[in-house]
Amino acid sequence: MDYVNAPGRNHLFVPGPVNIPESVLRAMSRNNEDYRSPAIPAMTKTLLEDVKKIFKSTSGTPFLIPTTGTGAWESALTNTLSPGDRTISFLIGQFSLLWIDQQQRLGFNVDVVESEWGRGADLEVLASKLAEDTAHTIKAVCMVHNETATGVTNNLAAVRKLLDHYNHPALFLVDGVSSICALDFRMDEWGIDVALTGSQKALSLPTGMGIVCASPKALEASKTAKSVRVFFDWKDYLKFYKMGTYWPYTPSIQLLYGLRAALDLLFEEGLDNVIARHSRLAKATRLAVEAWGLKNCTQKEEWLSDTVTAVVVPPYIDSAEIVRRGWQRYNLSLGLGLNKVAGKVFRIGHLGNLNELQLLGCLAGVEMILKDVGYPVKLGSGVAAACAFFQNTIPMIESRI
Amino acid sequence: MDYVNAPGRNHLFVPGPVNIPESVLRAMSRNNEDYRSPAIPAMTKTLLEDVKKIFKSTSGTPFLIPTTGTGAWESALTNTLSPGDRTISFLIGQFSLLWIDQQQRLGFNVDVVESEWGRGADLEVLASKLAEDTAHTIKAVCMVHNETATGVTNNLAAVRKLLDHYNHPALFLVDGVSSICALDFRMDEWGIDVALTGSQKALSLPTGMGIVCASPKALEASKTAKSVRVFFDWKDYLKFYKMGTYWPYTPSIQLLYGLRAALDLLFEEGLDNVIARHSRLAKATRLAVEAWGLKNCTQKEEWLSDTVTAVVVPPYIDSAEIVRRGWQRYNLSLGLGLNKVAGKVFRIGHLGNLNELQLLGCLAGVEMILKDVGYPVKLGSGVAAACAFFQNTIPMIESRI
Amino acid sequence: MDYVNAPGRNHLFVPGPVNIPESVLRAMSRNNEDYRSPAIPAMTKTLLEDVKKIFKSTSGTPFLIPTTGTGAWESALTNTLSPGDRTISFLIGQFSLLWIDQQQRLGFNVDVVESEWGRGADLEVLASKLAEDTAHTIKAVCMVHNETATGVTNNLAAVRKLLDHYNHPALFLVDGVSSICALDFRMDEWGIDVALTGSQKALSLPTGMGIVCASPKALEASKTAKSVRVFFDWKDYLKFYKMGTYWPYTPSIQLLYGLRAALDLLFEEGLDNVIARHSRLAKATRLAVEAWGLKNCTQKEEWLSDTVTAVVVPPYIDSAEIVRRGWQRYNLSLGLGLNKVAGKVFRIGHLGNLNELQLLGCLAGVEMILKDVGYPVKLGSGVAAACAFFQNTIPMIESRI
Amino acid sequence: MDYVNAPGRNHLFVPGPVNIPESVLRAMSRNNEDYRSPAIPAMTKTLLEDVKKIFKSTSGTPFLIPTTGTGAWESALTNTLSPGDRTISFLIGQFSLLWIDQQQRLGFNVDVVESEWGRGADLEVLASKLAEDTAHTIKAVCMVHNETATGVTNNLAAVRKLLDHYNHPALFLVDGVSSICALDFRMDEWGIDVALTGSQKALSLPTGMGIVCASPKALEASKTAKSVRVFFDWKDYLKFYKMGTYWPYTPSIQLLYGLRAALDLLFEEGLDNVIARHSRLAKATRLAVEAWGLKNCTQKEEWLSDTVTAVVVPPYIDSAEIVRRGWQRYNLSLGLGLNKVAGKVFRIGHLGNLNELQLLGCLAGVEMILKDVGYPVKLGSGVAAACAFFQNTIPMIESRI
Repeated sequence: MDYVNAPGRNHLFVPGPVNIPESVLRAMSRNNEDYRSPAIPAMTKTLLEDVKKIFKSTSGTPFLIPTTGTGAWESALTNTLSPGDRTISFLIGQFSLLWIDQQQRLGFNVDVVESEWGRGADLEVLASKLAEDTAHTIKAVCMVHNETATGVTNNLAAVRKLLDHYNHPALFLVDGVSSICALDFRMDEWGIDVALTGSQKALSLPTGMGIVCASPKALEASKTAKSVRVFFDWKDYLKFYKMGTYWPYTPSIQLLYGLRAALDLLFEEGLDNVIARHSRLAKATRLAVEAWGLKNCTQKEEWLSDTVTAVVVPPYIDSAEIVRRGWQRYNLSLGLGLNKVAGKVFRIGHLGNLNELQLLGCLAGVEMILKDVGYPVKLGSGVAAACAFFQNTIPMIESRI
Repeated sequence: MDYVNAPGRNHLFVPGPVNIPESVLRAMSRNNEDYRSPAIPAMTKTLLEDVKKIFKSTSGTPFLIPTTGTGAWESALTNTLSPGDRTISFLIGQFSLLWIDQQQRLGFNVDVVESEWGRGADLEVLASKLAEDTAHTIKAVCMVHNETATGVTNNLAAVRKLLDHYNHPALFLVDGVSSICALDFRMDEWGIDVALTGSQKALSLPTGMGIVCASPKALEASKTAKSVRVFFDWKDYLKFYKMGTYWPYTPSIQLLYGLRAALDLLFEEGLDNVIARHSRLAKATRLAVEAWGLKNCTQKEEWLSDTVTAVVVPPYIDSAEIVRRGWQRYNLSLGLGLNKVAGKVFRIGHLGNLNELQLLGCLAGVEMILKDVGYPVKLGSGVAAACAFFQNTIPMIESRI
Repeated sequence: MDYVNAPGRNHLFVPGPVNIPESVLRAMSRNNEDYRSPAIPAMTKTLLEDVKKIFKSTSGTPFLIPTTGTGAWESALTNTLSPGDRTISFLIGQFSLLWIDQQQRLGFNVDVVESEWGRGADLEVLASKLAEDTAHTIKAVCMVHNETATGVTNNLAAVRKLLDHYNHPALFLVDGVSSICALDFRMDEWGIDVALTGSQKALSLPTGMGIVCASPKALEASKTAKSVRVFFDWKDYLKFYKMGTYWPYTPSIQLLYGLRAALDLLFEEGLDNVIARHSRLAKATRLAVEAWGLKNCTQKEEWLSDTVTAVVVPPYIDSAEIVRRGWQRYNLSLGLGLNKVAGKVFRIGHLGNLNELQLLGCLAGVEMILKDVGYPVKLGSGVAAACAFFQNTIPMIESRI
Repeated sequence: MDYVNAPGRNHLFVPGPVNIPESVLRAMSRNNEDYRSPAIPAMTKTLLEDVKKIFKSTSGTPFLIPTTGTGAWESALTNTLSPGDRTISFLIGQFSLLWIDQQQRLGFNVDVVESEWGRGADLEVLASKLAEDTAHTIKAVCMVHNETATGVTNNLAAVRKLLDHYNHPALFLVDGVSSICALDFRMDEWGIDVALTGSQKALSLPTGMGIVCASPKALEASKTAKSVRVFFDWKDYLKFYKMGTYWPYTPSIQLLYGLRAALDLLFEEGLDNVIARHSRLAKATRLAVEAWGLKNCTQKEEWLSDTVTAVVVPPYIDSAEIVRRGWQRYNLSLGLGLNKVAGKVFRIGHLGNLNELQLLGCLAGVEMILKDVGYPVKLGSGVAAACAFFQNTIPMIESRI
């Protein structure tokens, strides 16, 4: 029943779903429970309180929705907007593309700001659009915080600054799927109206829970938003929150306990330490890429992603072959290049419950693959660069000293 | 981290989520995997083939959607209907009510056929509506196969007969949430156009997978249906089916392996044997209820449900107190009475991976609770009636003789 | 890979190995660890401190030995006695027989005090032997606290009283395999010198850990005991205790975490509540047996066991057929009659992590089996008797009210 | 309850206990079962048949004993020898020392052949002792196949050759604890009379099962061996084998299912491929050590171990500090130097369910640690050497191409 076993651990370096810690797997290995007993609401109450911390929000209202990131997107949009509403959305890679596609199919009037793949959202265009929009036709600015396809992180604080500068009332909707719990994310400080993530990303859970946090302004908007919605309607959640039973329909008991365990791990490590760890893993990855003589798909330092690195391969190499080889020879799972960058980049996901030696194993694997496919890499070069950085920066494990 | 432990096993007799077999728990206790590797599509292919068997369909197209039953409803409706479309829907209990509410909120013109709670769908009214509708304004007949709130099973074959009799082209959409894998269900034979269930019901998995099966006619309808949908859009699935990668967005790896294990168990036991076991458990429950001198909420034998029994309590007893007592004293989880029957009925779920001795423990528990709350039950009476039936009917476990 | 699956839970009512709580299974589902890291000794230290509580000992020294109950016996004997030493041992059933056999094979001079199977140890004979033994040739009194084969509990306090009365210095070695964590057990108060149990009994863990606790007097004796021993030698443990590394050879990491979880559960429920629960389950079982018109193998009330009930069947029935039938038809595992009582008794184990409704399911199952094999039981009679008792005595689950 | 968590996976490179594959963890996550039901004997039968394959024996009789390697030693010795019997045993490291200690404490007349730690057994001395022993006073030659403390593998075939050359009837008892399932091992071909291993070594299970295989000659010897034994007595096993119930005392149900899963994995990969993988991992490790400019504790190529590498550190470094640092900073578990080589060597275990990228992560970690403790290693050098070797030698994963 296990499809295509291979000796030893699978080295999972796609940018999601990511490695699940053993303690989380344990927490989830349990029978179903009656979600209408007093136990599940009691647990849910603490989860909702605690989950706000990963958004750095105190005023937000979180929703734990049995869905994926795609569903979380839909929840964010349909609860706050009405058909025909104008949104500004930034097309910088496959996931922003998919969100734009969703916005269009849901009937919004999407004002697409396109950038070359590898570049971040064009904030100058945003600025000029906001400046022009004195009639406030723009109802929402939609931004993918971290474009997983190209390893590009957008500057959310700068967006907020622009909105404030132009005193623009547009909602600020943010896809934090590959950023929340890994990158610096400050929902309240940055005036984000809806932020969302998926359980299988930096939270290091199985897929199946879309986590959405709505600001008071977003909740207010939901009262008048005319988009048709039922499964994703916040109203039903809010009704059950009020009743104290919390669930309009059956949640996954296992994911609730898993979320509890995942949050416990995050808080035990400390969210700031978690973010620092992601930054460290990413920096090392980039040093390795540099040592290999390869280019990062991300075109400017300010956009570098700390959760995923998209590596550009020379034109004579098919990046899909690199991914295939990882799987077939090294039990290493790398991310494919998608759409416009298919064949041109492969991706190393370095997010979630991961440590330095795991990453170094991956980097060593990539070196061998590069050699396999005919790229003249100096074996050990990337690992050496990463080690030199790590050896200076890895902190002691506090509980062990 | 375990909320309100108690010694021994929890006796889970709500009509979902239900008990998960240990082998399924085992199959799901695993790290995430890259769902874009060749392994997951290979597995998905066999799952899609095998999952059709639980619908008794060969011509249907199944979708494994990361959602709940509520989402599965939405998938069935939005892919086949357009806003303003007339549906016929039968209000016979809380879950049919919720589906009707969804239909209305999704913008359909719902023609509600109401019956007293405890009765099945009124097929005479359906017949007259079909007879009148020579213009074919009815686009879909929506029916909950088994109303979990009242323990009422509707006659799907009779609906098909009527549709055929009147040569009516309406789609036939069926909620099989608390029936599929437990009650006799024949998608192809009964001309069902969309059938759906949820993983946490008779399949005995955790919540999180909505399983929807669409007939060729339903697929055809989806090409022109104008309901706004993205997350639930079959089109995206079909596109990825064609490409052989199967997943438009990230599935739960764990639920896929869990589904594999659950189907293996079902097929090992034999679907017909599974259905016979449910029938046996239900019959025994009803004999116990009778022995206690209590009434079944279901008003006619033809509607008796083989997955859940709603027991009517005397007017001087609050059925919620029975459920509370089960939880607080006997580690027994029973189903509450919902909405119109709140306080008046409690429910015994007897579906999923369950055997006779488990049920007998539950029945004994109910007897003690009844006594606790002041109902003059003769202790042992229900168990005796159930045992008398079981002792004559339980088959030998084939693999053990 | 699962041998002979059957629908629903297996009803495990052999007197060991017993049901493992889900939280303990979870705690054990983990990778190996380096047992020489600081983590395992830190954990072991707390385990050794806490495990003394299940013996009700503060002065004892516990050993967690990777072995079974048979190995724990050997540990108790070889560390405290020398070849040729005279022991007094009571032959009252299969397990006392096996221990005597071990004592003989280990070279001790075993003074066997035999009783009819179904009766407890003959303390009058013990008294006279102690009285006669002014030369103190008796080096140890060996007693099985609870004879699992016949459901007989011996009176340990009375033995201590006799030893004190005769001022006899013999060591008092006690097999608490099917008693500790279930029956009242007071190592210090009753002056027990070595007490032992196995992980798979009332502790509700997998097999694999023999837990032995030695009094200061026993430790003293171990310094001069001449029995050949290496694997079971306490000396090696004591050496590693002193060093703070605790383990002379590799422990099972999983069982250590499992023991931690099992102790946590026991302490959360409260040891006295655990013992009261066992007493309640046992009493109900006996009431059922009586209602069936069958005899308890235990001949006097003072010896009744609260962890296992051996039920005598009529001469025209083979008790092995009852056990076989339970397995083949009801997914119910009962204990066979052993040796002298083979074919004559079957056994219901009611120890470990178990609650009342689980037991009632078992009792209902036994009734159907009895009918199957031709015994004219009134179905429901035993369950009714048990329920009548339970309904008056089961306490509320404290954390849930 | 998890002692000293740290982010990401623990990198477990002690030479046992080793990493457990997820599929084996899954197989073991299960409730207890009645080991007297027909299921467990049926399973045991196939296990006993299959386990012989890991010894490469068809004529041997295996015993699955609930104990550790130390207990397996005791089982091998006490069943075949009598007190006072002369054994030849080779003192070449800590584990051979411990076995010799056991032999002495069990009362044998141990003829110790000592070598410098880092060297293999002195077969010339053995030859001369065999030559001299025309009276056949030597009853057994005891050899640790792979000395885990120094990374030295002895030549078992050569021992057999000597025994044959001198036509010496001594039993040949072999500790295969850190060799079986990892190194070339041929019980029948090499005329080994008792071979043994522990579950937590190359079998990649939890600790708790000592696996012993006895040749017909060893079984014959057991009939007259006078060593006192009960728990370890083969006789009891053989009696239960004959009865078809297999277990003289309670086995760990979980380890039985775990063993089934572990053997399935081994056979799926192919034992020869498993051995080749170990050889590959070991060779790469040695290349790294060389690249670091450090010495292997093993003094001659013929003795190099393919399961563990003991690395000699410069005199100005305390190897214990290396191990501590791995644990405290890199979540890397390395093996300490033991006894004579304490402080002088650290050990890298590369056995069990392990692959190349896992090892490369470890090697990178060791490089950083070496730098941490002041050794002037060139970062990346060892990894580069290992990669160069791996990239030429790692086979494709057959099931994935």
